[in-house]
Amino acid sequence: MKPQILSKMGQRTTEPPISWLMHAALSRPKLISLAAGFTDNASLPVAEARTALNQVLRSPKTGQPALQYGITAGDPALRKLAAEYLQKIDFQAVVSSSFSSSSLVLELKSRRRTKGEDEKIYSPERLLITGGSQQLLYLTAEALCNEGDIMLVEDPTYFVFLGILQSRGLRARAVRLERDGLDLAHLERVLQSLRRNGELRRVKLFYLVSYFQNPTGVTTSFQKKCGLLKLLKKFERAAGHPIYLLEDAAYRELSFSGRADLPVSQDAQLVAAKRSEDGQRVPTIPPSALAVPGAAERVIYAGTFSKPFATGVRVGYGILPELLFTAVKHIKGNHDFGTSSLLQHLVARVLASGIYGRHVARLQKRYAHKARVMKRAIEKHFPSAIEWWEPEGGLYFWVRLPRNVPTGAKSKVFQTALKNDVLYVPGEICYADDATRRKPNHEMRISFGNASEGDIREGIKRLGKVLWKLI
Amino acid sequence: MKPQILSKMGQRTTEPPISWLMHAALSRPKLISLAAGFTDNASLPVAEARTALNQVLRSPKTGQPALQYGITAGDPALRKLAAEYLQKIDFQAVVSSSFSSSSLVLELKSRRRTKGEDEKIYSPERLLITGGSQQLLYLTAEALCNEGDIMLVEDPTYFVFLGILQSRGLRARAVRLERDGLDLAHLERVLQSLRRNGELRRVKLFYLVSYFQNPTGVTTSFQKKCGLLKLLKKFERAAGHPIYLLEDAAYRELSFSGRADLPVSQDAQLVAAKRSEDGQRVPTIPPSALAVPGAAERVIYAGTFSKPFATGVRVGYGILPELLFTAVKHIKGNHDFGTSSLLQHLVARVLASGIYGRHVARLQKRYAHKARVMKRAIEKHFPSAIEWWEPEGGLYFWVRLPRNVPTGAKSKVFQTALKNDVLYVPGEICYADDATRRKPNHEMRISFGNASEGDIREGIKRLGKVLWKLI
Repeated sequence: MKPQILSKMGQRTTEPPISWLMHAALSRPKLISLAAGFTDNASLPVAEARTALNQVLRSPKTGQPALQYGITAGDPALRKLAAEYLQKIDFQAVVSSSFSSSSLVLELKSRRRTKGEDEKIYSPERLLITGGSQQLLYLTAEALCNEGDIMLVEDPTYFVFLGILQSRGLRARAVRLERDGLDLAHLERVLQSLRRNGELRRVKLFYLVSYFQNPTGVTTSFQKKCGLLKLLKKFERAAGHPIYLLEDAAYRELSFSGRADLPVSQDAQLVAAKRSEDGQRVPTIPPSALAVPGAAERVIYAGTFSKPFATGVRVGYGILPELLFTAVKHIKGNHDFGTSSLLQHLVARVLASGIYGRHVARLQKRYAHKARVMKRAIEKHFPSAIEWWEPEGGLYFWVRLPRNVPTGAKSKVFQTALKNDVLYVPGEICYADDATRRKPNHEMRISFGNASEGDIREGIKRLGKVLWKLI
Repeated sequence: MKPQILSKMGQRTTEPPISWLMHAALSRPKLISLAAGFTDNASLPVAEARTALNQVLRSPKTGQPALQYGITAGDPALRKLAAEYLQKIDFQAVVSSSFSSSSLVLELKSRRRTKGEDEKIYSPERLLITGGSQQLLYLTAEALCNEGDIMLVEDPTYFVFLGILQSRGLRARAVRLERDGLDLAHLERVLQSLRRNGELRRVKLFYLVSYFQNPTGVTTSFQKKCGLLKLLKKFERAAGHPIYLLEDAAYRELSFSGRADLPVSQDAQLVAAKRSEDGQRVPTIPPSALAVPGAAERVIYAGTFSKPFATGVRVGYGILPELLFTAVKHIKGNHDFGTSSLLQHLVARVLASGIYGRHVARLQKRYAHKARVMKRAIEKHFPSAIEWWEPEGGLYFWVRLPRNVPTGAKSKVFQTALKNDVLYVPGEICYADDATRRKPNHEMRISFGNASEGDIREGIKRLGKVLWKLI
């Protein structure tokens, strides 16, 4: 029981679950952490950032605006660059789509929006720069949700988002996740049950981590995004208001497919489109939900430059429907009246100069390699009773033990792993509080993001030993 | 009426009053703005920031931590530097105090806290790094106040803080401001009336902009800080909980006194102390409320490195009582899980290298000069019926017209000024909504921060013409 002087929020807000994991790590110097969501240290762009900052600060003319206050919505040049960037990667994803056999995509292509419509969707006027995409998630929750309101989330989902819910007194309804994303049939049943209970009016949005999801690595297919928006729309009348899709694309750029999801020349796009038509499998990832017809008024897209470039440079952005854009911008005015100009100018510089694109390409290779190292170690050291999901991007493997073997902080598995100096994120902290289902507690998230190759091998070996012993 | 889909907060939050001022500025290219709270462009430390960033990013060893996630509370090195810095300037302010005749200060000196007590007050463990001090103000409001709670504020006060109140559904009670800070007798009457109405339990804090206040330029004397804390304490029993003092020291370093408020060597401190004992007036500014005995559990200190160094580098900090520190840190975890490491490493570097101290000293001279330019122009061009307060630091002059001459956005004065291409901040936006008094509307805030010397002269000349005509 916390003292009465604190607000309800102050009393509700608890230590994030990851904190004690980090404390556990600090107290054991030989511990190998496969828990942290940190990115790869060795590939952080130190020289690139130095080069770009020297360009930004080369003269008073370019340097002063970077050291002065800006406007709350963000630096106009960066907003323009970010909007163009996003439009390019969405367009490329549609053109080079490997699921060209799908009638849905054909339909989408035939209903391809006019240039004017696209310009509206990807307008810099609808794009807000934030302090990492995390701030956008927080501001969106503030602008939309009162205490007691309901958010729909994937089951499991990003646990810091669950922290926002808990802190703000919001409720969650969790929707089952399949290997290719959301279980839409389950979503429909959830929405029906909310309608029956008269709670649909409390439902404001669906939170979707759409690419290489944290924690499972799952990518939601474009078909499912279309289906998801259709379903939400279907229940809006009963809700009495729009139900938004908040698409968190934090890991989008961290695909292993190499050429992947970067803006490329028109030529390269045509080659990809041709290959795709010829039936060759072109590895690619789906466009964002912004590419779904009708998205302009329903999709909130949260992007970031932190994870793909440098996590110490906290610059994210949101594309929002107009009404929400204005509300979120005004609330941000009270938070900080704008993200650091220096960081924004740095990001604008690396985007415009091509530093960003080259860095992401290197990063993708690096993570693809580290994921292979982890995969081989898992194949070698884990018992076959263990199910694990191999990601095609992002930072995480998702590991499922038999249902009767708990992995939580007090479990034998976790404690034995800790004693053997290896740390993972217990799956249970990634599950929302939702009384309509039992919270699974037999999984783990393991990350290859920050650990060295040697530590990945050794960490998996230690974890394997624990699993062989306890399963 | 905003649409129902938005939360109560989303519906309440309005465009900040400064926004339309900026729009007004944009539509008139020849306009001279004395409205913006921007800092002086020409003295922004472009070369200094470049040097420091090149040091931070000179090698992977120093660069990688600056480009990686940190912990929510902030970079340990910066927290230590900031705490030491604050302790030094508070200690120096006590030692070199020019009000040595005051019995209060003698009492304070005799009751001088032990080293252990000081170490507790200025412990890095109680210091949280934030995205500008604005974020600390927001987080504090979240951690302490429920909808309908009451904040005590100066009358007038910093209008962005009033935006936080309005957005979060908080109420304000405004306490009269005198030339040397708060009217303590009025504060006592306000507290008594709140006690009578049974509303004291809704009072969580007093918000004080203690140095060269925005908008009036007033500095609250140390005696008044002591009296303020004593008064708040007196009413705590009736409130049933602590009543905090939130001291916003955003302008503290921007003193015109030259040597002023910077950490100096032990020798220089002794010289200053000696001079002070000899009865010489040593220009200095009061220590913070943290220097008041008993402050550890009641004072929240909001400091910033943005205004004194570069406003595009948004790094602020708070010193908080333990209970609040924890709550605020956890809420920040949901906002952004930590301020940009790169900005923190930059600030740590300029603090440790002496770049910061040298820059602040230059800035003080520069603002002192610009303030003199504005003062002379006012003396030359304003009618004598106009009262104005000359600041000893900060960025603002406070100008009072006769009571019957309104200065608000729709007033003749404002509109005529705009037509003559000069912009000021109407005083009325700096007054809280407080039904117990009539809101004054006959004042203006004019800033010499961002305007060039020529523009200051010309702007004041234009404004003077308007005033001669309309008063």
